[in-house]
Amino acid sequence: MDEGSPLRYHVDGDLVPAPEATVSVEDRGFAYGDAAFETLRAYGGNVFRWSDHASRLADTCETLGLDHGLTDADLKGRIDETLAANDLADAYVKLSITRGVQPGTLDPQPAVDPTVVVIVKPLPRGGVDSEPAHDGPAAVQTTKVRKASSRAIPADAKTHNYLNGILARLELRVTGADEALMLDPDGRVAEGATANLFFADGTSLKTPSLDGPVLPGVTRRTVIETAEEEGIPVEEGRYTPDAVREADEVFLTNSTWEIRPVATVDGLAVDGDGGGVEGPLTTLLSRLFDRRVEDRYYDGDRS
Amino acid sequence: MDEGSPLRYHVDGDLVPAPEATVSVEDRGFAYGDAAFETLRAYGGNVFRWSDHASRLADTCETLGLDHGLTDADLKGRIDETLAANDLADAYVKLSITRGVQPGTLDPQPAVDPTVVVIVKPLPRGGVDSEPAHDGPAAVQTTKVRKASSRAIPADAKTHNYLNGILARLELRVTGADEALMLDPDGRVAEGATANLFFADGTSLKTPSLDGPVLPGVTRRTVIETAEEEGIPVEEGRYTPDAVREADEVFLTNSTWEIRPVATVDGLAVDGDGGGVEGPLTTLLSRLFDRRVEDRYYDGDRS
Repeated sequence: MDEGSPLRYHVDGDLVPAPEATVSVEDRGFAYGDAAFETLRAYGGNVFRWSDHASRLADTCETLGLDHGLTDADLKGRIDETLAANDLADAYVKLSITRGVQPGTLDPQPAVDPTVVVIVKPLPRGGVDSEPAHDGPAAVQTTKVRKASSRAIPADAKTHNYLNGILARLELRVTGADEALMLDPDGRVAEGATANLFFADGTSLKTPSLDGPVLPGVTRRTVIETAEEEGIPVEEGRYTPDAVREADEVFLTNSTWEIRPVATVDGLAVDGDGGGVEGPLTTLLSRLFDRRVEDRYYDGDRS
Repeated sequence: MDEGSPLRYHVDGDLVPAPEATVSVEDRGFAYGDAAFETLRAYGGNVFRWSDHASRLADTCETLGLDHGLTDADLKGRIDETLAANDLADAYVKLSITRGVQPGTLDPQPAVDPTVVVIVKPLPRGGVDSEPAHDGPAAVQTTKVRKASSRAIPADAKTHNYLNGILARLELRVTGADEALMLDPDGRVAEGATANLFFADGTSLKTPSLDGPVLPGVTRRTVIETAEEEGIPVEEGRYTPDAVREADEVFLTNSTWEIRPVATVDGLAVDGDGGGVEGPLTTLLSRLFDRRVEDRYYDGDRS
C-alpha cells in the first residue's frame, strides 16, 4: 500500500479504492440491515480462527434464510486478496454478505444475488508484548436498553441490525463509560454492545450462558478453551448485575480487543484484591492468549 | 420520465439515475441499519399527510440521537424534486436519513454528516374508484417470531433495522400467507411486519394500543380519525390472537396499501356475516378513505 493512497476494499468481486466502495441504495443490506457479517482479526497475514467465523457466518445466513451460494474458500479468498492488495499483515477485517437488490419491498425472495463486501483497516499486531487494540481498561455501565429476546431477534445471528447496541452506546454518552452492560429481558447479565463479558469471583471464571441472548463470540470460546486447558474452572450461567459489580475481576472479549480488562462497573472500581485494575486471572489469560497468537501466527518471530 | 430510462433518485442532494444511486459501504445506514426512514404516498404530486410523516421522522431521529440539521422544508423539497424529475404524480416514496460515515466503529458520534436518500416508484393513483396497491385481501398468519420489547428496540422508531419483520415474513414462506400477525413479548397482538392491524366484532373497531410495540402508523391514525368522525366507536387496547381470529372483520393499514381487507387469519376465514370477504365496516372506511384522498389531492377531478 502506497503511503497516502486509500485502502482498497472488496465489493462484489472487485477490489476498489475505499472512496468508490459503494452499494446500491436499494441493496437490502442498506434498506433493512438484511445482511450477515463477521469481524475478524488478521495476524501475520492470516485471519484468526477462520473456520469458527465461517461456521458462525453460515449459521447467521441460515437464520436469515440467505442462500448466498458462495463457498467458505471463496469468501476466505476475498479476504486474503483484500489483505494482499493493501499489503496488510495485521489488520481488522469485516466481511459482510447481504441479500442484495431484490424486487418488491420487505419480503425476502429465495433467489439471491448477494452483495459481498470486505473492509480492512490496519491494526497493530497481536501476540506477546503487543500493544492492545483498545483504549485501556474499560468503564462498563448497565444500560436501560435491554437485549432483545431471541424470540424477536436471534442473538446468535450477527447481522447489520445493530440498533440495539447503538441505543445502549448512546446511553453511555451521559456517563462517559466505554461499554454497555446489557441485560436480558429478565434482568440477567447478557453481554456488552460489541463484546462478551467474563468475571471471576475467586472460585471460577464466569460468563453468561449462550442460552440467553448472547453472541457466541469466537474470542469468548478461545478464552474458555484456554482457561480449561489451564485447569481454571469455567462456569456458564445466568447472573445478576450485582454478581458482576461484586466480582474480583471483570473483562470483555471480542475479536478486535481480544481481552480487555474492566476497571469499573457502574462507577464501582473492580479491585477485589485492593490492588491495581487488572487482576491476576485477567493477566494470565491475556498472556496465554498472546502466546497462542504468537505461536500460531508469528512462529515466535517478532517482525 | 422518458420511456425506458431509469428512475432518478435523490442521494445526498443530487438527483442521480437509479443504477448510480449508491452509498458508501462504510455508511452507518449500511453497516448497522443506523438510519431513520418514512414510506410515503404521493397523490396527484403531493405527499399524503407530510406533517405527520415529518413529525414521526423527527421522533425517530430523536430516539436515534441523530441530529441531522435539516429542516422539514428541505426534506420535503428533496421529495418534491424527485417526484418532478421523474414526472411522477402518483408514487411510492421512501425517504431515509442515515448517520452517514463516521470514524470508529459502533459508537455514534454527535457530529453528523447525514446521508439523505429519496427513492420513488410509480404507484397508481388512489382516491375514489382507484385500484388498490395490494394483491387483494390478505391471508394473515400468527408467527413464532415476536415483536421486540420496546425496552430493546423502540417500536415507534422507524429505522433500517428491519430484521424482526424479515424473520416474520420468512415464516410465511411455508404457509403462503401475505402478512404476519406479530405478537408482543406477552403474547398479545401487536401488528404486521409492515402494517397496523384493525378488527371489528360488531360493537366497535379495535386496534392494538400504542402502549405496546406498535408503530404509530399515519394510515392507522387516519382510519381512527375517519371512524370517529362517522361516529363509529374505536377502542385501542391489548388483544389476544383469538380475538382477531373470531372477529367479524379484519383489515391492515399502511401508506402503500391504505386499507387492505383480510380474508383469513391463521387459515380461518374472516366472514362473520357468512358472506364475502370484505365486511361492511371495511368497505365503508375504505370508501371514506378514498373520498378523503380524492377531495384533498385531486379536487374531485379524475385525471
